[in-house]
Amino acid sequence: MHHLNYATVETILVNFIRNEVHQSGFTKVVLGLSGGVDSAVSCALATRALGKENVLAVMMPYKTSSADSLSDAQCLIEQLGIASERREITATVDAFFSDKPDANHLRRGNVMSRTRMITLYDISARDSRLVIGTSNKTELLLGYGTLFGDMASAINPIGDLYKTQVWELAKHLQIPSSIIEKKPSADLWEGQSDEAELGFTYQEVDALLYKLIELRLHDEELRADGVPPEFLAKVKRLVVRNQFKRLMPVIAKISPRTLGIDFRYARDWQAVK
Amino acid sequence: MHHLNYATVETILVNFIRNEVHQSGFTKVVLGLSGGVDSAVSCALATRALGKENVLAVMMPYKTSSADSLSDAQCLIEQLGIASERREITATVDAFFSDKPDANHLRRGNVMSRTRMITLYDISARDSRLVIGTSNKTELLLGYGTLFGDMASAINPIGDLYKTQVWELAKHLQIPSSIIEKKPSADLWEGQSDEAELGFTYQEVDALLYKLIELRLHDEELRADGVPPEFLAKVKRLVVRNQFKRLMPVIAKISPRTLGIDFRYARDWQAVK
Repeated sequence: MHHLNYATVETILVNFIRNEVHQSGFTKVVLGLSGGVDSAVSCALATRALGKENVLAVMMPYKTSSADSLSDAQCLIEQLGIASERREITATVDAFFSDKPDANHLRRGNVMSRTRMITLYDISARDSRLVIGTSNKTELLLGYGTLFGDMASAINPIGDLYKTQVWELAKHLQIPSSIIEKKPSADLWEGQSDEAELGFTYQEVDALLYKLIELRLHDEELRADGVPPEFLAKVKRLVVRNQFKRLMPVIAKISPRTLGIDFRYARDWQAVK
Repeated sequence: MHHLNYATVETILVNFIRNEVHQSGFTKVVLGLSGGVDSAVSCALATRALGKENVLAVMMPYKTSSADSLSDAQCLIEQLGIASERREITATVDAFFSDKPDANHLRRGNVMSRTRMITLYDISARDSRLVIGTSNKTELLLGYGTLFGDMASAINPIGDLYKTQVWELAKHLQIPSSIIEKKPSADLWEGQSDEAELGFTYQEVDALLYKLIELRLHDEELRADGVPPEFLAKVKRLVVRNQFKRLMPVIAKISPRTLGIDFRYARDWQAVK
């Protein structure tokens, strides 16, 4: 993995947030703070970009959420001096599943993630705040996230940073070490661990993704480099199969100019404000 | 508005649905059936594409939803001979707002729309069904829909048809006339009417959008054509301001290859199945 200059990365991302928020006509933002490193980094960047008075962090625990997640989130909120709200999602999620007692972990996790999206967008409408995303590049490539749930946002400052790079940026930003050092987990059910679920570590997969995506190495080069063929096949399959999570809904083309195909340039109409 | 050959449109859209569903590895689909013309047309097309045994229509009333909507949806379900489920969203939506009694119509409508998305995607996960979208081109251009709500789907057969074209296609498909002739409404609150809320009729706005988007007429040409300048300005403003609803979250660029910017071609890896 190529080493980044994290002071430069910070400058780029702080300016990105400031520009995008202001160009969209907003001054304030909202984001979900889970207690994990991704949302902590997004939150710290947003605070540097917009000032602590313009950032609202929302903690959205479910009844099974880890108590550590909440105390770590609280610790960061105090360090940054930003406003926060606590919005339990338990009543809404349990109402949804009241007539579906047999729903499995995956379905329950998706509904929890999407209920958090609803909560953030409701606060967005209430306060005129832009929703800041917290998905990293590893998750987006592997499709390890919920479409229209945690993958939904207006702007995403960390979507081009691999998970291992997010950890480095977190150190640079002086995020509390308890957040950086904890085992990565979506915390959708008790004992969930990203790396156990995926079957490989972030160190391993980021090293491979970097060679695949940034260095564009071919299969033969990767094999010569010692990448196990089954691991390569598994990761490529995840990237391809989850392409749909990185695209807008596919629209059937009928007219001369179709949305998402050949009508993309509302930006040509910028004279209209 | 250019006249379309709706028999040809039907053929194109039926093949689109069949190809997209099968290429994604699915055989079955699910869609929300509101009682309105857009979801009725999507549902009829899906049934022709996949056979009635592979289409599930879901009615998702809120306590204030119109009774006519449900009986119209039921009428189409019987005509097509497809399976259906009724999933009340009232308990989930009311649980969400139990501690927010002052939330306005807009916020409540967004949560209702997104709760329906959650319901459809939960059924998608339960049954391995692809979610079929039901947003027309007029709505998508004007941003007259809920992001990550009714605008969310896997594939959208009618996203390149203006509302007035959807009505024509509905006649061709022999959709029940009560569905075609009713006043368009998102039915998110009692008495809601699309045309009253927008401030113009679909006939008016579709005629203008067609000239703007398909014919690429300039402002001077539109004025010479008798389009009132305020109407033109209002419609262009809606199209530009809602561009964000037609795009994925904006990612800050850091690496050589960024998702949605210069990493788009997982399709090059199609050897991986």
